[in-house]
Amino acid sequence: MATPETITSAANPLLKDVRRAIARGGLTEQGWCVAETLHLLEEALRSDCEVKVVLAAESVRSAAEAQAGRRAGVKVVVVPDPVMQKVSATQTSQGVVALVRPPEWRLDQLFRGRALVVALDGMQDPGNAGAILRAAEAFGATGAIFLKGCVSPYNPKTLRASAGSLFRVPFLHGRDAAAVLAAFKQRGVRLYAAVPAREGKAARSPAEVDFTANCALIIGNEARGVGPELRAAALEVSIPTAGVESLNAAMAAGILLYEAQRQRSTA
Amino acid sequence: MATPETITSAANPLLKDVRRAIARGGLTEQGWCVAETLHLLEEALRSDCEVKVVLAAESVRSAAEAQAGRRAGVKVVVVPDPVMQKVSATQTSQGVVALVRPPEWRLDQLFRGRALVVALDGMQDPGNAGAILRAAEAFGATGAIFLKGCVSPYNPKTLRASAGSLFRVPFLHGRDAAAVLAAFKQRGVRLYAAVPAREGKAARSPAEVDFTANCALIIGNEARGVGPELRAAALEVSIPTAGVESLNAAMAAGILLYEAQRQRSTA
Repeated sequence: MATPETITSAANPLLKDVRRAIARGGLTEQGWCVAETLHLLEEALRSDCEVKVVLAAESVRSAAEAQAGRRAGVKVVVVPDPVMQKVSATQTSQGVVALVRPPEWRLDQLFRGRALVVALDGMQDPGNAGAILRAAEAFGATGAIFLKGCVSPYNPKTLRASAGSLFRVPFLHGRDAAAVLAAFKQRGVRLYAAVPAREGKAARSPAEVDFTANCALIIGNEARGVGPELRAAALEVSIPTAGVESLNAAMAAGILLYEAQRQRSTA
Repeated sequence: MATPETITSAANPLLKDVRRAIARGGLTEQGWCVAETLHLLEEALRSDCEVKVVLAAESVRSAAEAQAGRRAGVKVVVVPDPVMQKVSATQTSQGVVALVRPPEWRLDQLFRGRALVVALDGMQDPGNAGAILRAAEAFGATGAIFLKGCVSPYNPKTLRASAGSLFRVPFLHGRDAAAVLAAFKQRGVRLYAAVPAREGKAARSPAEVDFTANCALIIGNEARGVGPELRAAALEVSIPTAGVESLNAAMAAGILLYEAQRQRSTA
């Protein structure tokens, strides 16, 4: 689709495509990631991902152009503020939307070096998924897998909560549990499934499991936890807690990844 | 305000009061906490907090009545589904809203036993604040303080993210930094301020600080971190991370509280 220098109508096909991607929580029909905020534009430009175009509200045009100018050939299209406000449902886009080509990864790239892969099983909340990607990068995970049935990694809210880590951490999505289990088995990867303390009476504590081996950490659905197929194939690990039924899924993942990094840095 | 057996109009003063509280992110004008979802109703009934009334959509009336029946004298008011849908902006209330008297705590109650107090300094996101309360309870914190300028602990989104911990963890809010510092000093409480790894070159790692002492952990604003006044009075602690600028504030708090609990359980 051709991109003009300015767009003045909310009926413009590119704006409509962006709006639909935000509403649907996925890529645009042309296959682009919707990166809202100046910060995510900066993160996209720091990454290896292609940036197709930057849509900027008139009022933030100069800031967007200064940022986009860091990489040659990135085009900024100016949109009147009232039209731009209709594109994003949230107040937090800051009037900047970049369309970024999603990175493509091969399975092997998730297992480079001493593997630490995060597998998301049925995770529904894009904020949780993004926060986990951010923690995965922070604590040196080698890759992430969004199993079939998870929220889309390309949901603009996932990308926002990842604070840009989605542009850097190798990930796959839409995979079957059986295929992923086979890939883990083939590589001799140990599987750990996070379970709430109330269910994990027989589970190990994070300090009791060996995260220094090649391993994968499975984080389940916010309400139902890890599914039976993966759980049966994994060693259960529970963070000791008191009083609460469970921790937030992203927080549990972050704590387990912190523990893995702690073990790996002292091993 | 009198509460009838059923409400049929969105213009009903009680419904309007609830809607405003949700929009404003605080208590109702009558001073009640808005607890959305059947789960939060259950948590309120498990706590010592008074439950004034339960508003239930017609379609979930029996589930709400069964839950409310666990405590004598809790009144359920039935509201037609379309009217109930106008009360909450989100899709996630599940048609149940309980009005709960907010717990009241004295400063001393935050320091019972071996103190571990979480102080929030300028935190804006209700989801983060609530997730921190949930982790605080999970890891045995003795109390929490929302400093002046933070999101309201009574924001319905804070309560939701706390998954009910807000009904149980002793907390204060709207306090000045100077007064809180004086209270910490008077009790001989050690202060730790969480700072991102990129800023905390001279900061200690979580394993290097002593969380077994009476202590307080200060978590700052999502963008600006801990303010200068509190930071100057505290020892800085940084979670070692790579690649990212920082962790999500709630995740950082959860990891530090996990580490505190780990130290306390093995000390």
